[in-house]
Amino acid sequence: MAGRVNGVRDGKQRFVVDCDGGVDDAQAILMILARSDVDLVAITTVYGNASVGQVGRNVRRLLRVADRTDIPVYAGSHAPLVGLPHTNYFYHGSDGFGDVPEMDDKYSDEDSVSDTADIEGAVPALLRLVTARPGEITLVCLGPLTNVALALKLDPNFGRKLRKCVIMGGNYKGRGNVVISSEFNFHVDPESAFIILNELSCPTVLVCWELVLKHGLEISEYENLRGDAAGGRKADFMKRIESLVVAKKQNAHAKYLPCDEIAAAVALDASIVKRSATVYATVELAGVCTRGQMVVDWTQTLGKQANATIVIEIHKDPYMNLLKMATCN
Amino acid sequence: MAGRVNGVRDGKQRFVVDCDGGVDDAQAILMILARSDVDLVAITTVYGNASVGQVGRNVRRLLRVADRTDIPVYAGSHAPLVGLPHTNYFYHGSDGFGDVPEMDDKYSDEDSVSDTADIEGAVPALLRLVTARPGEITLVCLGPLTNVALALKLDPNFGRKLRKCVIMGGNYKGRGNVVISSEFNFHVDPESAFIILNELSCPTVLVCWELVLKHGLEISEYENLRGDAAGGRKADFMKRIESLVVAKKQNAHAKYLPCDEIAAAVALDASIVKRSATVYATVELAGVCTRGQMVVDWTQTLGKQANATIVIEIHKDPYMNLLKMATCN
Amino acid sequence: MAGRVNGVRDGKQRFVVDCDGGVDDAQAILMILARSDVDLVAITTVYGNASVGQVGRNVRRLLRVADRTDIPVYAGSHAPLVGLPHTNYFYHGSDGFGDVPEMDDKYSDEDSVSDTADIEGAVPALLRLVTARPGEITLVCLGPLTNVALALKLDPNFGRKLRKCVIMGGNYKGRGNVVISSEFNFHVDPESAFIILNELSCPTVLVCWELVLKHGLEISEYENLRGDAAGGRKADFMKRIESLVVAKKQNAHAKYLPCDEIAAAVALDASIVKRSATVYATVELAGVCTRGQMVVDWTQTLGKQANATIVIEIHKDPYMNLLKMATCN
Amino acid sequence: MAGRVNGVRDGKQRFVVDCDGGVDDAQAILMILARSDVDLVAITTVYGNASVGQVGRNVRRLLRVADRTDIPVYAGSHAPLVGLPHTNYFYHGSDGFGDVPEMDDKYSDEDSVSDTADIEGAVPALLRLVTARPGEITLVCLGPLTNVALALKLDPNFGRKLRKCVIMGGNYKGRGNVVISSEFNFHVDPESAFIILNELSCPTVLVCWELVLKHGLEISEYENLRGDAAGGRKADFMKRIESLVVAKKQNAHAKYLPCDEIAAAVALDASIVKRSATVYATVELAGVCTRGQMVVDWTQTLGKQANATIVIEIHKDPYMNLLKMATCN
Ligand SMILES: [Ca+2]
Ligand SMILES: [Ca+2]
Ligand SMILES: [Ca+2]
Ligand SMILES: [Ca+2]
Repeated sequence: MAGRVNGVRDGKQRFVVDCDGGVDDAQAILMILARSDVDLVAITTVYGNASVGQVGRNVRRLLRVADRTDIPVYAGSHAPLVGLPHTNYFYHGSDGFGDVPEMDDKYSDEDSVSDTADIEGAVPALLRLVTARPGEITLVCLGPLTNVALALKLDPNFGRKLRKCVIMGGNYKGRGNVVISSEFNFHVDPESAFIILNELSCPTVLVCWELVLKHGLEISEYENLRGDAAGGRKADFMKRIESLVVAKKQNAHAKYLPCDEIAAAVALDASIVKRSATVYATVELAGVCTRGQMVVDWTQTLGKQANATIVIEIHKDPYMNLLKMATCN
Repeated sequence: MAGRVNGVRDGKQRFVVDCDGGVDDAQAILMILARSDVDLVAITTVYGNASVGQVGRNVRRLLRVADRTDIPVYAGSHAPLVGLPHTNYFYHGSDGFGDVPEMDDKYSDEDSVSDTADIEGAVPALLRLVTARPGEITLVCLGPLTNVALALKLDPNFGRKLRKCVIMGGNYKGRGNVVISSEFNFHVDPESAFIILNELSCPTVLVCWELVLKHGLEISEYENLRGDAAGGRKADFMKRIESLVVAKKQNAHAKYLPCDEIAAAVALDASIVKRSATVYATVELAGVCTRGQMVVDWTQTLGKQANATIVIEIHKDPYMNLLKMATCN
Repeated sequence: MAGRVNGVRDGKQRFVVDCDGGVDDAQAILMILARSDVDLVAITTVYGNASVGQVGRNVRRLLRVADRTDIPVYAGSHAPLVGLPHTNYFYHGSDGFGDVPEMDDKYSDEDSVSDTADIEGAVPALLRLVTARPGEITLVCLGPLTNVALALKLDPNFGRKLRKCVIMGGNYKGRGNVVISSEFNFHVDPESAFIILNELSCPTVLVCWELVLKHGLEISEYENLRGDAAGGRKADFMKRIESLVVAKKQNAHAKYLPCDEIAAAVALDASIVKRSATVYATVELAGVCTRGQMVVDWTQTLGKQANATIVIEIHKDPYMNLLKMATCN
Repeated sequence: MAGRVNGVRDGKQRFVVDCDGGVDDAQAILMILARSDVDLVAITTVYGNASVGQVGRNVRRLLRVADRTDIPVYAGSHAPLVGLPHTNYFYHGSDGFGDVPEMDDKYSDEDSVSDTADIEGAVPALLRLVTARPGEITLVCLGPLTNVALALKLDPNFGRKLRKCVIMGGNYKGRGNVVISSEFNFHVDPESAFIILNELSCPTVLVCWELVLKHGLEISEYENLRGDAAGGRKADFMKRIESLVVAKKQNAHAKYLPCDEIAAAVALDASIVKRSATVYATVELAGVCTRGQMVVDWTQTLGKQANATIVIEIHKDPYMNLLKMATCN
C-alpha cells in the first residue's frame, strides 16, 4: 500500500455514504461533495425517511442537481433485519424530500443516471468496494443500519477492512425522538444497530440524538446558510426541499436540528469534535419502552472493551463552515 | 381538619420513613430527627442494603443512639415483589452499617425497643397510619419500593391519602450504578417502582442517581461535617459505621455520593430544589440491559399526564446545613 | 390439632374460593355448596370476568339463590399486580353473569348480605382465615391470582399454612385462549401467577386450558345436566345466566368448555384425576407473544424442584356426577 | 420452462441442503443421495453441531465416503444473526461427528474436494442457484437458519423462487430440548427462525421437536438399520460416527431421536406425512424463558395468513425404508 498514509491514498479520503434519503441526508451528501479532498466512491440506499425506491430516486435527483451522476448508487434494504418496516414517521414529507415536485427542478430534464445503479445491490457493492480498498474507506451511515449489518454478517471481516465508520444514530442519555426512549435510526432496526455496535471491528464514531439536541440552530441562523448563494442550483434545491421542515420549526418556535449534517462534519474533520467519550455501548433489543435505546456502560460494569466513540460536543464555527460550504457554489 | 394548613397540623410535618438500613439511610433519618418541626411517626423496613431482619436491627440501633426508641419500627418485605432478593451489592458492608460491632457502641446496653415493633407489619402499619391522617403524611422512601407498592395494591386510595412522597431511586439519563443502566432501588424491584410511578396519586418527588452524581462531596468536605461535634453520640456513631465506605472512596480518590441524604433534605425543605422537571416517567420491566431503568417521556410522546417531579439540581448551602445538623448535637 | 386427620377436622374439608364471578365460577361454587362434607368458609372476589364490584354483586346474588348468605364475601383486587386491568374479554356478558336482570330472579327480594362483607378486604381475610386454621384450608382459585399473590407477599408463610391450592389457570402446551399463547387467568396477571408458582409452598394443582379443551361437553350433554332439576332455584338460575354462552356455542357448533367446574371437581375429589404430572412450572413475564404463558420444565433442564401438579386427564363419570349435583336440589 | 412438471425437470427433483454437520445431518444427506430421482445440487454449511469450519470438513468427509465429491459445498455463517454463537450443546461430540478420527476412515486418502467450495459463500451460492432455477429447488434446512435468513434479507424474492422449504426446527407444544422451552435450531438463532417463518413466501414444512419425540426408535430397532449392509462404506462410516450418541442412549435406556432424518424423509416423500396442520406460526424473540420458542396461532387469534405446515405424525414404514436406504449400498 505504497503511497497511502493513514488510510488516505493520493491525498484523497474515500467515503461511502449509506443513507435513507431525507433532507438532512441530502445536505450531508452536499457537504461531502463540496470537499475536493474527498472522493465519494458510492452511495448506498436504505428505507427510512422514505421507501428504499424513493430514497434511490431522491439520491439520483440530488446527484443531478450537484452534477455528479458519475457517482454510483446501489439499492439496499427495503425493511429492517427483523420485522416490518415502519409506515409512519415521514418527517421530511412523504417522499423524504419535502414533497416538492421534481418537474419543477431547474434541471429535471437531466437523466444521466449512473450505469452501475440497480445492477448490483447495496450489500454486495459494500463488500466489493471495501474489500478492494482495505483500510481506506470511511463509511458514513445516515440511516437505519440494515445494509451495513448485512454486509458484516456476510463477511465478518467487513469492519476490519474499513478505515472508520461514522454513524448518525442512537442516544446516550435515554432521550427518544420518534418514541419515548430511542432515536429513529436505531428504533426502526434495533438488531442491526446491535450488530454494528457489537461486531464492527473498526473505529466507530457515534453522532447521537442528544448531541443533535445540543447543537440546534435558530431558524434565522439556519436560513443565513443559503444567503450568499441564493442563485446556485444546490442552494435553490435545498431551500425547496427543506421548506416543509423549516416551516414546521418556525411555527413551533423551535430550532432546526441537524442530524446527518453533524455526522458528515465529524467524518470530514475529526478536529471539530470538542469532547467525546470512548465506551462500550450496546442496544436494548427486548424492552417494552426501551427497545432500540442505546445503552452505555459508563462505569464499565460489564468489563467489556470499548467499541464506540460518542461525540459529546463539537466546535460550532468549523462545523458551520462545513455546513455553509455544502451549497455555496 | 381544623388547625391544619397545607397538610401540616400543629405546626408539625408528619413523616414516615421507609428504609433499607444503609449508612445513608441512617444519616437521612438523623437529618429528619434533628428537625424539631418534624414528627417522625414511624419507620418501616425493607430488604436492600441488608436483609430485612438486619435492617430492623440497624434502625433500632440507630434509634437507641439517637435516644428515640419511642419511634415505632415496622418490619416489611424480605424480597422484591417478583423474583428473588439480590444477594450481592452489599455496598455498606454485609450488615449495611459498615460491619462495626454493636457491642462497641457506647450505648449498647440500651434495649428499650418500641412496643409496637414486629407486632404489626410494615404494610398494615402504612395503611393504618396514612388512613388515620389523610393528607398529612410525607412518605420518604429510601429503599426498594416493595412495601409502598404492596400498600398501594391493598388500598388503591393509599396515594391520595398521602401529603406527598419523596423517593430516592431511579435515573433520568440511563446511568446505572449496580448494573449498566439502572439504579439500585429500582433495579432490585422494578415492578414496585413501576407501580409507584404509574399508580401513586400524590405529588411524587424523585431524587435520582444522576442528581446524586452531580452533588458528590470531596471526602475532606464530607469529614468536616463531623468536625464540630466530635464528642457527640450521633457523630461518633456515624463516623464508625461510615468508615468502611469512606475508606473505599479515599482509596479510589472518589467522592462521597449522598443518596438518601438528598432525599431527606428535599423532603424537609422543598426550597433547596434549584431545578426540577415535572414529567411522565415509568420503569422498563422487560429489557435485557434496561430492566429497572427509569424511562422519562421528555417530549410527551405518549401523551400521558405527568406523574413525577424529578429534581435536577439542588442549592448546595442549605443542603449542607441540613446534613450538618444530622449529627451536630 | 386433635381431631384432625390430613387437614380435615370434624370430617369436614374447609374451602376458601377466590373467584372472578363468571358463569363457570358460579357453577363451581354450587358444586362445592352441594357437598355436605365441605365447609365453604369464605369467598373472596377479584376482577376478571367482570369488575371486582360486579363480581361481588354476582357472588352475593348466587349465595341468595343458594340460600347461603351466611358465607362471608370479601372484596379483593380491582386490577392486576402490575399494569392496567383488561377492558375486553367479557366472555360471560358484560356483568359476567350472562347479562340477565337480577330483578327477574325468583328470589331477588332477598338481601340478607353477610355482615362481614366489605368490612375486611380479601387479602387480610385470606391471611386471617388461613392463619387461624393452619394446614386446613383448601384454596380454590378460579380467577386471576392477584389476591393470593398479595397475601403471599404480605406473609411469606401463607402457602405453608394452606392444606393445598387448586388453580384454574395456565397452559402446558402453549395453547392460548384470549391471546395467542396464554390462558386468560394467567394472561391478565402474569406476575401474580409467577409469584404463586414460584413461591407458594403448598401442594399446588393446576387445571390448565389444554385439560379444559380435552373435556369439552356437547351442548346437548351439558343441557342434560339441568334436566332432572328443572324446577329448582339453582338449576333455574344457572339456565338463565348460562344462556348467553350456551347460545354462542350452539351457533358455532362448538362444545361447552368447563373451566372452573373442573377445578372445583379436582378440589372436591382428587380421585377424579386420571393422569397428572408433577413438574417445575413457571410463567413467562417478558415475551412479546408469550407473556403470561406457562412454561413447563418437562426434562428438568433447570434442575429446580417440582412446584406444581398439572392435571393431564380426569375420569369423566365422577366428574359429571359432581357437575350434576351442583344444581340437583 | 418446458419439460417441467410441478417444479420437477427431467424427472428429477432438485435439492439444496443447508446443514450444521451433525450425525443426523450426515444420515439425512445419505438418505437424499440414495435417491436416484433426486439431484442434490449443493450443500451449504452453518455453525450448529460444530463450528462452521468443522461442519465443512464433516460434509466433505461424508461426500468422500459417499463418493460424491462432485457436489459443491459452500461455507456459510459462523454465528447467529444477532449475538454470539453458543459454545456448549455439542451433542454429537466436539466435532459433530462423534469424535472418531478421520484418518481411520477406510477412504481417508481421498481428497478430491469440489472446485467451487470456499470460493463462493453459502449465501451468494443460495441466491445464485435458486435464481437460476426459479420454482425448482427444494431447500432442506437441517441447522440454524442463519444462511437462509440472510439470503432472504438480500433478496426478498428468494422464497418465491423456491419450490418448497422443509425445516427441521421449532416446537409446537412448548417442549424444549437444550433449554426449557425451545428447540436447538430455533434456540441458537431465534431472529433467523422468525424471519423465515414471517417472510419466506413458499410452502414451508416444519419438522418440529415434538414430532421427533413421537417417533423415537428403540436402539435395537435403530441398529437393525445397518444390519443388511454391514460391509458397506456408508454403513461402516455411520456406525463409527453414531457410536457416541448410540452409547449415550443405551446407557440411559432412551430412544434414538431422529431429527434431520425425518426432515429429509418428508422432503423426499410428502406422502409419509400422516397428519399435519397448516397454521400461522412465529417465534418469540423477547422472552426470559421462551426466547426461541415457536408460537402457533391455533385459533387464529391474530387473524394472520397461515405460513407453515407443521407435521404432526408420519407413517412409520415408508419412513423406515427411506432411513434404511441411506446406507444400504
Ligand atoms: Ca438520515
Ligand atoms: Ca437506602
Ligand atoms: Ca373464573
Ligand atoms: Ca442438524
